[in-house]
Amino acid sequence: MVNQKYKNMLGAKNIIRVLSEYATERGAEIGYENVFDYSLGNPSVPCAKEYTDAVIKMYEKEDPLTLHGYSPSLGNTKVREQVAEYLRNRFGIPYETKHIFMTSGAAGAIAHALRIVTEPGDEVLTFAPFFPEYTPYVNDTGAHLTVVEADKEGFQINMDAFEKAMNENVQAVLINSPNNPSGIVYSEDTLKKLSDILREKEKEYGHEIFLISDEPYREIVFDGKEAPYPSKYYDNSISCYSYSKSLSLPGERIGYVAVNPKAVDSDVLAIMCGQVSRGIGHNCPASTSQLGIAATLGKTSDLSVYETNMNLLYDVLTELGFEVVRPGGTFYIFPKCLEEDATTFCKKAMKYDLILVPSDNFGVNGYFRMAYCIDTEKVERSIPVIRKFVKEEYGR
Amino acid sequence: MVNQKYKNMLGAKNIIRVLSEYATERGAEIGYENVFDYSLGNPSVPCAKEYTDAVIKMYEKEDPLTLHGYSPSLGNTKVREQVAEYLRNRFGIPYETKHIFMTSGAAGAIAHALRIVTEPGDEVLTFAPFFPEYTPYVNDTGAHLTVVEADKEGFQINMDAFEKAMNENVQAVLINSPNNPSGIVYSEDTLKKLSDILREKEKEYGHEIFLISDEPYREIVFDGKEAPYPSKYYDNSISCYSYSKSLSLPGERIGYVAVNPKAVDSDVLAIMCGQVSRGIGHNCPASTSQLGIAATLGKTSDLSVYETNMNLLYDVLTELGFEVVRPGGTFYIFPKCLEEDATTFCKKAMKYDLILVPSDNFGVNGYFRMAYCIDTEKVERSIPVIRKFVKEEYGR
Repeated sequence: MVNQKYKNMLGAKNIIRVLSEYATERGAEIGYENVFDYSLGNPSVPCAKEYTDAVIKMYEKEDPLTLHGYSPSLGNTKVREQVAEYLRNRFGIPYETKHIFMTSGAAGAIAHALRIVTEPGDEVLTFAPFFPEYTPYVNDTGAHLTVVEADKEGFQINMDAFEKAMNENVQAVLINSPNNPSGIVYSEDTLKKLSDILREKEKEYGHEIFLISDEPYREIVFDGKEAPYPSKYYDNSISCYSYSKSLSLPGERIGYVAVNPKAVDSDVLAIMCGQVSRGIGHNCPASTSQLGIAATLGKTSDLSVYETNMNLLYDVLTELGFEVVRPGGTFYIFPKCLEEDATTFCKKAMKYDLILVPSDNFGVNGYFRMAYCIDTEKVERSIPVIRKFVKEEYGR
Repeated sequence: MVNQKYKNMLGAKNIIRVLSEYATERGAEIGYENVFDYSLGNPSVPCAKEYTDAVIKMYEKEDPLTLHGYSPSLGNTKVREQVAEYLRNRFGIPYETKHIFMTSGAAGAIAHALRIVTEPGDEVLTFAPFFPEYTPYVNDTGAHLTVVEADKEGFQINMDAFEKAMNENVQAVLINSPNNPSGIVYSEDTLKKLSDILREKEKEYGHEIFLISDEPYREIVFDGKEAPYPSKYYDNSISCYSYSKSLSLPGERIGYVAVNPKAVDSDVLAIMCGQVSRGIGHNCPASTSQLGIAATLGKTSDLSVYETNMNLLYDVLTELGFEVVRPGGTFYIFPKCLEEDATTFCKKAMKYDLILVPSDNFGVNGYFRMAYCIDTEKVERSIPVIRKFVKEEYGR
């Protein structure tokens, strides 16, 4: 018989997809260059040339049997070794091959990380604003996602709300810094406080609480800074990484799980991911994608356009009187709407062919997200449109 | 807290992997050319040149943003359209784009197919001998796998045992033809009888029973024949395909789900797979793998070596008095051991550096599997070794 849960899910439309599809349709009418489509978080810069060159070389020179052969279910051993070495050198944490599990992007990484440290019935906490796909990611494991109220001052963590939400049933906390949708980077101070609370609660409840850190935007940080690395602050932690944004390879579905060597059972956690895979049909990411990223470790696409775009938008939004926290990274900005209801606000913007995503799905009301992974030229052309929209609709 | 189920699974070793690792270690001692490693089902012929050429051309000519961009979660729409057209032309079944869902190989296809037509607690039947990974594939969805006793005459389906095993709780039946490990191709007669029983039971129980057909060996069929296509015989059916064997691309993890257009809810079943993906973190297979297979639809690697190897082995095994059903396809053969206990038999063979897999994990006792996806030259050199083993150990 047809599964009713998945059948019922078909009715529920993803607002980001709906808006993105609308933008495409509208583009067909008036020319896509005239639609200021800030809906979708799809990288707008090409992948690093080193990646393309490395893959072409493999296809030309390598034995196809080796190149396209089964990779071990934990990932190509040499690739895992290289990723571990890279992380060791970069973060000073003694990762070894056994701590790395290759995945199909961050979604695959989170799917595995959640399953190795929770059981069905457990609770997982995350912090608003949050990536809405975390809900199916967590709930489909059999665990339950609880969203902690946002810190609306700076979109760091609302520690009071966090402490209140904690309870014995919480087995994992899922964070995302640099953050989609706020663009905020968690400060050292935030990560220290978060870790202190987690350690205290581990003692109080008598079990580990794992920190699962979703880091696809790790390399997109502004003002020449680096994002503080969560696993430096907390031992029972698992980093989930994707090359989708740093190398502009979202379609290639390549990332990894990196288990903190100091975590409880760190010798087996990544290996357990291989057991999870058997049940969810992953096996491993494409062998050539694994080899491709191994050949370009530490390289990124030219990501500077995102900072340029952010500055343009931040300036005009603050000038127009929007309440907005300046993003420290990513390609998102998350200003407060000029009226209470975000959907009404975003609908009004649509009349100007400005495609903004209302915040309700991200766990806070009254904000909107702009994904500025588009050409700077288009951002520039959108500025008079934003001004016109705000002036005509809100008299500013 | 660390998940206990997955932690406990670490102890359980996969016998095929264990034997394959042993063969590698032994190879390091005496030279791998001297180990007659029939353990692992890894293709031994290179991928079709058309695939390599198509991918290199894409990397050289295509816009990297398009090439590596997010594919829709159901798969690249153009690729799905091409797969549907290919299947339509080949099997005369009116597949449309909406019936196709692109997956990470057959494992990914089965993971999705099971979830869209069963609920936790349901029962899924399969037939011995069977691919042992079906156990985690099914049981990790929350459903339960029941294995129906083998038809030891011809490794078709034991219809009496099947009818006895059927009950109201069975929501899906999982088949694999051409079959791993037996190498047998289900005949038209088998598929018709199977379908008749399923239709009868659907009426009796008042609910659909889906046939999930795992077909990675569809193109490896001997004697110039074609494998009867299960979806031709039964409407509520889902084909799960992988290019791992036909194009020798196991590492690229590329395949699809094809929902029979005549199935109940066929308009939404493939689309429901996209909802399943959200929870198990698949998203979609690598975009370049999708485009690569679309560029080579209908092409295969040169698969003739498998038939050559099968004939060599079948001849010597029958000559030596083994009870063995002649494979109709795949790169496996599944003879009866010369003593009751398969493990003892295979251990004796190891002394001759013949690596055979005992049948117990495949759901029948007293047989062994040989994966003859190796060079013909090596098969030829193994023949005197097989003779020696049988003579010295069993006096034949």
